[in-house]
Amino acid sequence: MVKNKIPDLTIERLAFYSRRLEMLTENRTHIISSEKLAELCDVSAAQLRKDLAYFGEFGVRGVGYDVEELLKVIRRILATDRDWRLCIVGIGNLGNALLENENFKKRGYNFVAAFDKDPEKIGKTLPSGMVIEPPRKIKELTKTLRIQMGIIATPASDAQRVANMLIDAGIRAILHFAPLKIRTPKDCAVESVDFTVKLENLIYHLAKII
Amino acid sequence: MVKNKIPDLTIERLAFYSRRLEMLTENRTHIISSEKLAELCDVSAAQLRKDLAYFGEFGVRGVGYDVEELLKVIRRILATDRDWRLCIVGIGNLGNALLENENFKKRGYNFVAAFDKDPEKIGKTLPSGMVIEPPRKIKELTKTLRIQMGIIATPASDAQRVANMLIDAGIRAILHFAPLKIRTPKDCAVESVDFTVKLENLIYHLAKII
Repeated sequence: MVKNKIPDLTIERLAFYSRRLEMLTENRTHIISSEKLAELCDVSAAQLRKDLAYFGEFGVRGVGYDVEELLKVIRRILATDRDWRLCIVGIGNLGNALLENENFKKRGYNFVAAFDKDPEKIGKTLPSGMVIEPPRKIKELTKTLRIQMGIIATPASDAQRVANMLIDAGIRAILHFAPLKIRTPKDCAVESVDFTVKLENLIYHLAKII
Repeated sequence: MVKNKIPDLTIERLAFYSRRLEMLTENRTHIISSEKLAELCDVSAAQLRKDLAYFGEFGVRGVGYDVEELLKVIRRILATDRDWRLCIVGIGNLGNALLENENFKKRGYNFVAAFDKDPEKIGKTLPSGMVIEPPRKIKELTKTLRIQMGIIATPASDAQRVANMLIDAGIRAILHFAPLKIRTPKDCAVESVDFTVKLENLIYHLAKII
């Protein structure tokens, strides 16, 4: 079904499209034209069609896409049609914000373990019922709880060390928030979210209009 | 100095380059080759040179870039060489995580006001000394405190309403975390951070290797 290598940016946009399609299903929209969907997603209709063309033919000419059908296909492509088991390391404000994010659970991302090195936090029970564990238990719990992904929400200075522990435990996908490059082996996927980069884009645009 | 229109992705990468250059200055690296810097930034050397070429000529052939000089130039381009005044709306876990983010202050992004609609929170003093204000004061405080940017960290269901209030108050740059499109007038720049999109990229890569 999949031709050659799919560009990373296409994958990123697919995730974005699926977010908009979810909203449409919630609003009970059943059919949408590629122009309308593209506008909702802030891309050109040509871009949208090109991204989808990697995976086959969708939509009916002159009618549009079946919203639920397209969402199902995109979820299958992204493998977000299954449940995934996550752990989080670093239970500060950011960690708690992620644990409480309702969109995670809704999408099948289940936090099954939480780690923090702070002795004051270890042993505490989170609102979800999970107990905060010390980082030395990462390896053991990754095995017994079959953890597939790790989220690092520690201070930046601990991020690489934590990543090494996750990798050593066999985790092959890491999301982190540190404003630095985390080194991982080739078979471990890593993504970062850096708030301040987005802020700098804003400032660039703001500086031009004021 | 600036030729034509600079692509948004170039601006995004410049912010990213500046992050890496900051780290280099902290490590007292004075000169770096374009190949080495590109590797640190996870782009090709050709891409790096192309991005910088929009703004002039940098670096010395066979020697490399002067780290501090290049950082200064990029900061001037991005307008991050000045201080900016921000407000934040929504003081939950995410809001607190942003307020406590040390990288914000370090880069000259100063939070000067915090708003929340929760009567339990209004009037409380934050660790920084700021007092949480009700959203109805957004307009007044934007004027008196000369707020330039607004960060929305409320639940998604309130995000558009809060954006409207910020825009009405004269704010022309908004960062939000809601997994939806916020509508703003053409002269208001908006950026969003969506954690789950990054997670979906990870899952796509993970599903291929397991």
